[in-house]
Amino acid sequence: MKLLKPTLDNIKPLDKDAVEMAWKHIDNLTKPIGSLGMLEEIGARFAGITGKLHNKVKKKNIVIMAADNGVVEEGVSCAPKFITKVVTENFTRGITGVCVLAKQAGADLTIVDIGVDDDFNNPKILNKKIAYGTKNIAKEAAMSYEDAIRAVEVGIEVVDKLVMDGVDLLGTGEMGIGNTTTSAAVLCALSGLSPDIVVGKGAGLTDEQHKNKINVVKKALEINKPNRNDPIDVISKVGGFDIAGLTGCFLAAAKNRVPIVIDGFISSAAALCAVRLNPLVRDYIFPSHLSAEPGAVYMMKELGLEPMINLKMRLGEGSGCPLAFMIIEAALAIVNEMGTFEEANIVNDFLIDIREK
Amino acid sequence: MKLLKPTLDNIKPLDKDAVEMAWKHIDNLTKPIGSLGMLEEIGARFAGITGKLHNKVKKKNIVIMAADNGVVEEGVSCAPKFITKVVTENFTRGITGVCVLAKQAGADLTIVDIGVDDDFNNPKILNKKIAYGTKNIAKEAAMSYEDAIRAVEVGIEVVDKLVMDGVDLLGTGEMGIGNTTTSAAVLCALSGLSPDIVVGKGAGLTDEQHKNKINVVKKALEINKPNRNDPIDVISKVGGFDIAGLTGCFLAAAKNRVPIVIDGFISSAAALCAVRLNPLVRDYIFPSHLSAEPGAVYMMKELGLEPMINLKMRLGEGSGCPLAFMIIEAALAIVNEMGTFEEANIVNDFLIDIREK
Repeated sequence: MKLLKPTLDNIKPLDKDAVEMAWKHIDNLTKPIGSLGMLEEIGARFAGITGKLHNKVKKKNIVIMAADNGVVEEGVSCAPKFITKVVTENFTRGITGVCVLAKQAGADLTIVDIGVDDDFNNPKILNKKIAYGTKNIAKEAAMSYEDAIRAVEVGIEVVDKLVMDGVDLLGTGEMGIGNTTTSAAVLCALSGLSPDIVVGKGAGLTDEQHKNKINVVKKALEINKPNRNDPIDVISKVGGFDIAGLTGCFLAAAKNRVPIVIDGFISSAAALCAVRLNPLVRDYIFPSHLSAEPGAVYMMKELGLEPMINLKMRLGEGSGCPLAFMIIEAALAIVNEMGTFEEANIVNDFLIDIREK
Repeated sequence: MKLLKPTLDNIKPLDKDAVEMAWKHIDNLTKPIGSLGMLEEIGARFAGITGKLHNKVKKKNIVIMAADNGVVEEGVSCAPKFITKVVTENFTRGITGVCVLAKQAGADLTIVDIGVDDDFNNPKILNKKIAYGTKNIAKEAAMSYEDAIRAVEVGIEVVDKLVMDGVDLLGTGEMGIGNTTTSAAVLCALSGLSPDIVVGKGAGLTDEQHKNKINVVKKALEINKPNRNDPIDVISKVGGFDIAGLTGCFLAAAKNRVPIVIDGFISSAAALCAVRLNPLVRDYIFPSHLSAEPGAVYMMKELGLEPMINLKMRLGEGSGCPLAFMIIEAALAIVNEMGTFEEANIVNDFLIDIREK
């Protein structure tokens, strides 16, 4: 609890004056009021986060938490466990989906081994291993309460360091075979929703395997009885090290007043844990795409956030973040570079007219 | 008909071999099959358009057609007509929404006066004026059948020239007070949908003004009786010069095998006209965002296209295109730069396993 408590205590609300100043500016740009939709909202919220009207992103980074999940022994994934290790290695080789998209957006990756069931001999992978994978949640708690806190604190530590290094826009990603199962369990535990509507087919299960996955989540919830009012308890019982680490990332981003982007289903489960730990965190979070995972819609509803993009992606890795980065930077450009009505030679009578509408 | 007929005749289907080759390549990239959703579809379709597996965009351009609409005298817009001219001038000054977003995406603008009700003295605005605005569609046809063809041919001419200059990704935009009214009329005429569900509030009408706008569209359809099987007839009777010009852009893009992006409600009305003139055009068109205009959903349905982005934008100008450009270029990077399963050290047994799913 060296890091968690002070982090939670140091999360402050958005700078209301900056938000107000931003809206005043945005409403004076040469366009019908509100006509740039969520681009305007992004611009205003960004101002509230940084406290400045004009913002320019200098350094973008996507934190990828990699961990194994004991629950894979229940046959909840069509990919074998060793894929977690292989893909995590491949993040360092620039060949996976998130690598290519991050390069496109000018973003760096931070790859964290927070609980992969094997050792890496790769200097590009940060060793923050809590354990060699979690326990099988269909039979027992994924990890101890203490380990859950330690894993959350790994995320805090990683983001604190990145912010110190000048990162001013963060993304979240993960790699861990079995983590759509744990994420669905976390969502059900925190929301009371039924696994029947939340559990999806992950990377490509058959109908029968899908039914099994639903039952595994139900069993995990029955056996572990996670306390929905204690997100750490939920993470420790039915979550995973990746979800825990990313929860810490969201908390630390909010504490450091740096905007942070959700990728898909797993990182939104972590976002939900972070928001339940401190509701102020929500204002620091930007969603990216709507994952094709069926639970994603419910997750966004619980978070009260609306995705910018809908490309039916379901890769994970953080692959939605670079696309959101591009849109966020476009929103900042709108605030910084569009002309005002005055500059646009739009006369005052009309100005008053359209402002009133 | 010097340009229209040969353009229509020279639109060919996608290169099926290239599409097949692209899918084979994409399905062999190191990710679960289909997990990059529409990014994969964009990559494959792009290959079918150009005939090459690997594509890189070198020169992006958004064609903005500016024109006035006689129907504004019916009080269908909350902005006065002179705004068409003011904003068109402002495109050349880099201060409007589309200017800022295009710069962000590295795209140029081509600004065309195809029917503004005033003269420009600005070398950055292409003078292709057919007339000083259209007639009032609530009382008579917007333009003659011959002028509709001439306006479509302006779009063909502009795009032919841009392609000759090396442009390999096109966007569409417009400026014309009153053009959500004409676009709604075009959609109703081509689809048989009722103005009650299609007509929106544009840049900010009151409820009463909205009712009036619906009635104006109904009147325009009743008086002019556009022939839904003849898109040129529809354009000439209830459309506008901007819609006509953009229709030509879509046709010429398809003929030249250059992908072209829809912005919002108005450019999608033009896309629909183009697709009705030759259904093959559809495969060359990429949507961008879902406009906040209520008719936009119906337009996308008629076109059989699904927008990539949902930011509740309703500015027009072509402002959605730069955002789509970024996503399209990200999709091309996926095809060009991601590793294959073999490169990713993912063994053959598992490979066969996940490919079958």
